[in-house]
Amino acid sequence: METTIQKTSRSPITQKEYPLPKQADDQAGIDQFLSLHPGKKVVVVQGLGFVGSVMGLVVANALTEEYAVIGIDLPTPASYWKICSINEGVFPVLASDPKISLYYENARKKQNYYATYDSYVYSKADVIVVDINLDVKKQSSEGTEPEDYSVDLTPFKKAIESIGTNCKPDVLVLVETTVPPGTSEKIVKPILEECLLKRGLSKDELKVGHSYERVMPGPKYIDSIQNFYRVFAGTDETSALAVETFLKTVIRTDEYPLTRLGNTNATEMAKVLENSFRAMNIAFMVEWSRFAEEAGVDIYEVVNAIRLRPTHKNIMLPGLGVGGYCLTKDPLLASWAKMNLFGSTERLHQSEKGVQINDKMPLYAFEFLQSQYPGPLVGKKVLLLGVSYLNDVGDTRYTPVEGFYDQLEIEGAAIVLHDPHVLYWEEKDVWVNQDLDKLLEQEYDLIAITTGHKEYRNNPDLLDKLFQQSASFIYDTIGVLTNEEIRLLSSKHTVKVIGRGDL
Amino acid sequence: METTIQKTSRSPITQKEYPLPKQADDQAGIDQFLSLHPGKKVVVVQGLGFVGSVMGLVVANALTEEYAVIGIDLPTPASYWKICSINEGVFPVLASDPKISLYYENARKKQNYYATYDSYVYSKADVIVVDINLDVKKQSSEGTEPEDYSVDLTPFKKAIESIGTNCKPDVLVLVETTVPPGTSEKIVKPILEECLLKRGLSKDELKVGHSYERVMPGPKYIDSIQNFYRVFAGTDETSALAVETFLKTVIRTDEYPLTRLGNTNATEMAKVLENSFRAMNIAFMVEWSRFAEEAGVDIYEVVNAIRLRPTHKNIMLPGLGVGGYCLTKDPLLASWAKMNLFGSTERLHQSEKGVQINDKMPLYAFEFLQSQYPGPLVGKKVLLLGVSYLNDVGDTRYTPVEGFYDQLEIEGAAIVLHDPHVLYWEEKDVWVNQDLDKLLEQEYDLIAITTGHKEYRNNPDLLDKLFQQSASFIYDTIGVLTNEEIRLLSSKHTVKVIGRGDL
Repeated sequence: METTIQKTSRSPITQKEYPLPKQADDQAGIDQFLSLHPGKKVVVVQGLGFVGSVMGLVVANALTEEYAVIGIDLPTPASYWKICSINEGVFPVLASDPKISLYYENARKKQNYYATYDSYVYSKADVIVVDINLDVKKQSSEGTEPEDYSVDLTPFKKAIESIGTNCKPDVLVLVETTVPPGTSEKIVKPILEECLLKRGLSKDELKVGHSYERVMPGPKYIDSIQNFYRVFAGTDETSALAVETFLKTVIRTDEYPLTRLGNTNATEMAKVLENSFRAMNIAFMVEWSRFAEEAGVDIYEVVNAIRLRPTHKNIMLPGLGVGGYCLTKDPLLASWAKMNLFGSTERLHQSEKGVQINDKMPLYAFEFLQSQYPGPLVGKKVLLLGVSYLNDVGDTRYTPVEGFYDQLEIEGAAIVLHDPHVLYWEEKDVWVNQDLDKLLEQEYDLIAITTGHKEYRNNPDLLDKLFQQSASFIYDTIGVLTNEEIRLLSSKHTVKVIGRGDL
Repeated sequence: METTIQKTSRSPITQKEYPLPKQADDQAGIDQFLSLHPGKKVVVVQGLGFVGSVMGLVVANALTEEYAVIGIDLPTPASYWKICSINEGVFPVLASDPKISLYYENARKKQNYYATYDSYVYSKADVIVVDINLDVKKQSSEGTEPEDYSVDLTPFKKAIESIGTNCKPDVLVLVETTVPPGTSEKIVKPILEECLLKRGLSKDELKVGHSYERVMPGPKYIDSIQNFYRVFAGTDETSALAVETFLKTVIRTDEYPLTRLGNTNATEMAKVLENSFRAMNIAFMVEWSRFAEEAGVDIYEVVNAIRLRPTHKNIMLPGLGVGGYCLTKDPLLASWAKMNLFGSTERLHQSEKGVQINDKMPLYAFEFLQSQYPGPLVGKKVLLLGVSYLNDVGDTRYTPVEGFYDQLEIEGAAIVLHDPHVLYWEEKDVWVNQDLDKLLEQEYDLIAITTGHKEYRNNPDLLDKLFQQSASFIYDTIGVLTNEEIRLLSSKHTVKVIGRGDL
């Protein structure tokens, strides 16, 4: 939204503003931190986003070893505040998981988690965990046709170069970023080796591995890293063993044994494959959901009946769309890699198609609304219940609510937002309300449930307040309303549910 | 394969030949059977195929009621022998499930399971269970493009008419056939009502419901009917209650509670949706399997690693293709219904595409072989391990082995077949060997594993015999060989596995 160049970085948590440093000159800070931890292995986590900042926390609270942990990110308006925040005692990620603050307090006590922006830090690292983003650029929200998205590896390669220019020759570089399959072998390792050779150092002791995280922001944030299955591989035997040794100190591998795969292509493929499986199965339900609307069928009761079969437990429910950082892009990373890193002439058509279908879901949800709503939406007062893409979590990255919101705005509706987990919707630069009771003291023309937060499910108080609205149109895009609730509300309002025909 | 008109029906089990009856004149037989069971409710099962014949057995062994059960099928060369066989003491379905013969012996003892071809039987029925086939005609094995398949309801409608022309006005007609969603309401009920009205009878007491079976031929054949979850619905409240009452006497609903859905469109949709889910997820793996081949990845170890996640347990493995009566057609039935019974303008593209991809798998498996095999296949001696489409079961209906076999035959290979569960491959009119030891005394140029029977898995004896072959090409289309087995065999032979790049 900003067009002028920002010279500061503002914390969305404390609102504190930090002037950006003019040079990367944190050598003293790094040396001072390390002087507190003589003899300890140094783990550097590259990237302080949703994964890296918490991965750093988990390593600082390792199970069987004491590490000196340093997180590094860029001194940009978007990231610099995280560095300051970690060092000042405010963890930069808000989460409902109580373990987050527990782990952070513990790290503060032990003074073993520092953050910096100075790549000098790589020269001190025994292990470097790569947790930076690797994005797909979609040309339009419409599509993922061959020409409609692109993968630009430049920022990722630059980050790897900054490691290679500084690292010890025997460092272990563990890539956790979701990358196009082939990246560790064909990009990361060659870049690091070239950098070492340029510096007149041997490349023989370098260790490169890949092990993807399965981080799930929310009430089990820490557990999704520390108490969960992990897949790993090395670019050679020594690297694989080094990765295994490191992960065993950090992850509860007695309960969740590690799975070693044959090569890093395999682990990289596993990550994008599992996310493509998920994205695909959501896309699959889109067409069936429309069929249900046509045939007077309640797709939710159908899916719940099918899920009783163990072989069909993973069948998905329909909804407003797909959000988050993974499912919206990982199938594309995979298809891109197939063509560009392995020279295949065949794309992963079906997986790309899955993303394309999912990307269109919010638009479909809006069109379905238009087809059912009596009259135009201009000037109508609309309450959206939920902004996050995920139930019971405040994460707005690529939330499908955005596409739906945009359409309502284009039509000229007056939109009010509620989300118990989102204070400020960064991508849209708007504030979000938390007080549902107060919001419902006013009247709305349209109330749409757009996230499946527990506050909107089986909540008699909410039901009562919805019922008291004078003559509303209630639109459940997620299928949280039960049959009884729909029946009750329908006696006074118009109620429409995605994936449910009029019975 | 036969071109002359058959006047007999031959049992593939006993080889006995039965002359076809010239008229439907089994009234005496039916009356005599029923005279043995005064006061009992009469259940007629229409269709004596893989589902109907065993459903009849389960009803004859109902849990809480004693029924007189009569199976009915057509007096055609393909079906007449089943009628005779049931009445003569040889159950017409071979299965590894010991409960089949137990249940059949019990029914013989109680003399409560009769079979006929005379539609007079409908006049005696309290319940009629419809278990006939409803087929999709594919124009070519290549495709399921809109114009490439068709659904002809004529035989199905005729079967329903034969009920309506004879049935009592208060009969319960329970459709178990996998039908295009909408069929019970839009086709079955109107036909029956019209027939009753034509006969001057009331249509008000007629009961029509739908509840689909989830029969799995194999070691748990009976349990897949009697001890498994069921979904049901009625075309009205009375019908739904009648279905529920009937199913409760037959199925162990205390352990596997029934799920009632809002209407028969929903149950009909549930069945084709669950099979489409499965077909789709197989199709999804096809592209990834090729990617693995390109990237030197073992897709089996990748999938096994992913399956540790409870949310991803249902991810499928690649293979030779998809067979059987359901997954190969049900997505098409659904799409056809959407367009033709509900007037939608949008097909179920993705589900149709899934069938199309799966249909091409055997051809791809053959092309992959051709790309790897040194030289042409003409005159080569080929051993195929497995003819059935399903592990540890002898079921060749729409087996993907057929497409692979056809290609080998076109190329002029000399093919030898082995399958422990298939004596005679009906669709190809060829005999199948059972003695693997003896077969492996000879030398083959190519040995392909085409079904995942347990005889081919972790079998040291087989491995030893394969190793002893002089210089074979071993092609595992299913991924049954372990890493160690591949390593061992590769020391002497060429080994290729679908979904596995050369590591």
